[in-house]
Amino acid sequence: MGEDEGVSRSTAQNAQLALLLEVSGTPKPGNVDREREYEDLTFEQFLAGAVGAFDGLEQAATGEPVGRSFERAIAGMSQQRGGNTQFGAILLLTPLVAAAGKGEPTRDGARQVVEETTVDDAVNFYRAFDYVDVAVDEPPEGMEPLDVRRGSDAESAIRERGITLGELMDESADVDGIAGEWSNGFPRTFEAAQGLERSDGKVTNRASALFLALLASEVDTFVVTQHDTETALEVRDRAQAVLAGEENPYELAEEFIERDINPGTTADIVAGALFIALERGLTV
Amino acid sequence: MGEDEGVSRSTAQNAQLALLLEVSGTPKPGNVDREREYEDLTFEQFLAGAVGAFDGLEQAATGEPVGRSFERAIAGMSQQRGGNTQFGAILLLTPLVAAAGKGEPTRDGARQVVEETTVDDAVNFYRAFDYVDVAVDEPPEGMEPLDVRRGSDAESAIRERGITLGELMDESADVDGIAGEWSNGFPRTFEAAQGLERSDGKVTNRASALFLALLASEVDTFVVTQHDTETALEVRDRAQAVLAGEENPYELAEEFIERDINPGTTADIVAGALFIALERGLTV
Repeated sequence: MGEDEGVSRSTAQNAQLALLLEVSGTPKPGNVDREREYEDLTFEQFLAGAVGAFDGLEQAATGEPVGRSFERAIAGMSQQRGGNTQFGAILLLTPLVAAAGKGEPTRDGARQVVEETTVDDAVNFYRAFDYVDVAVDEPPEGMEPLDVRRGSDAESAIRERGITLGELMDESADVDGIAGEWSNGFPRTFEAAQGLERSDGKVTNRASALFLALLASEVDTFVVTQHDTETALEVRDRAQAVLAGEENPYELAEEFIERDINPGTTADIVAGALFIALERGLTV
Repeated sequence: MGEDEGVSRSTAQNAQLALLLEVSGTPKPGNVDREREYEDLTFEQFLAGAVGAFDGLEQAATGEPVGRSFERAIAGMSQQRGGNTQFGAILLLTPLVAAAGKGEPTRDGARQVVEETTVDDAVNFYRAFDYVDVAVDEPPEGMEPLDVRRGSDAESAIRERGITLGELMDESADVDGIAGEWSNGFPRTFEAAQGLERSDGKVTNRASALFLALLASEVDTFVVTQHDTETALEVRDRAQAVLAGEENPYELAEEFIERDINPGTTADIVAGALFIALERGLTV
């Protein structure tokens, strides 16, 4: 065998591979996976999304500002016809990749990346919404000028208030699972990475098992946004039933696809966990 | 929507996406695909192979020598436990990517890339065999010093004979489908790209349909190497039976996997065709 020096995957490549492995895990009730897709959101669009996200991930890994790197990743991701394939996953990955670019990905390192974000990062985060439609809640009262759906049009409102990207995430931490990770030092993501490392077998199978475990443990905030709290609670309970052997995960996957229930936040956490595990030496 | 300038996929990214789309097409009798894999050669290893190949593909796209770019791509591809995932596909893609890097990918452009290859390119091509085990035939009589399985140990024999990479491919053009493409201006690959462009629907479905059509049209040289001519003829005939509606492609896929029959050369041509079509504007 040849020497491996300088040949092993870079940090950005591990992030890209995490996106690819995440979408390839099956069954993953409600989400696109290797065996299930929606008419207007297909597996191959996730492949293209992961390919296109690379340059932005590379920017994050090499010390470019988090906001600009994120915007670049989303712009690249959007070069396929499915629209929002991996917005949340890339939002979770970007600070983790930035932290890993400075050494090992650790909770402290990721927390520091978040703390050091600026108003410019917030502006660039909003610009990313110009590229894709993302399902979000109505902003709280008084926050309309900061509605993310305004995209780059919100720039002056952000600058007036002098709000950083980290502070923005704090605002949504209670209602958005990814913002909650940003705000609290990524507790679920790092714990999930340990879960992956403790398991064995094919990585995609470990990822889908992790998905089910996470889905059973907390309500998926994307399902709350997309449907309502009642639906999100049902999703959690039925994932628990799968774990208890009382429901068939494949049938649940068909049903959720039918009902357009996509626990996207849970999938995003899996992608983040895969990245951390790959950086720490998980082999494929 | 935001502006797309500078955001669309690069040539190397289209090559990477071609590798990902190729392995995701299903059914593709005998090969790893989204729904079928071998115990020791899995779908996720192809994902990692495509991620790892990127830097070498990027080198080819930016004018680095073909041999060195190929070696780099294979070294990166090999960073997973499956071994040879996409050796043949990357060998086919490298000159196409180099040609596309200079403008549009055309047969003339690709032919010129092959003509301009050097002895150094041949040496680096051999070095790529240090990274993975590739199934190849015994070399012809008198050619033992140039057995590719010698890898970098063959360097002095290559230099003594002053043989270029293009000339090496000419030697094997009759027995190896990929060498044949190199040697003859990539006729099947470009014709297959037109086939993809004429079809519609999901790209991965078009890719698997193309795979079957190609499999029915010529014997797969990798099957000849791996098994024998008789098996390769049977594979071609049974692909014809699928096209005639007399065989079920899913059952054939199961049977070929069982018998360890992998029409790898045909899959490589599909990857090359996907790349050309993506470069020409095929959307995902």
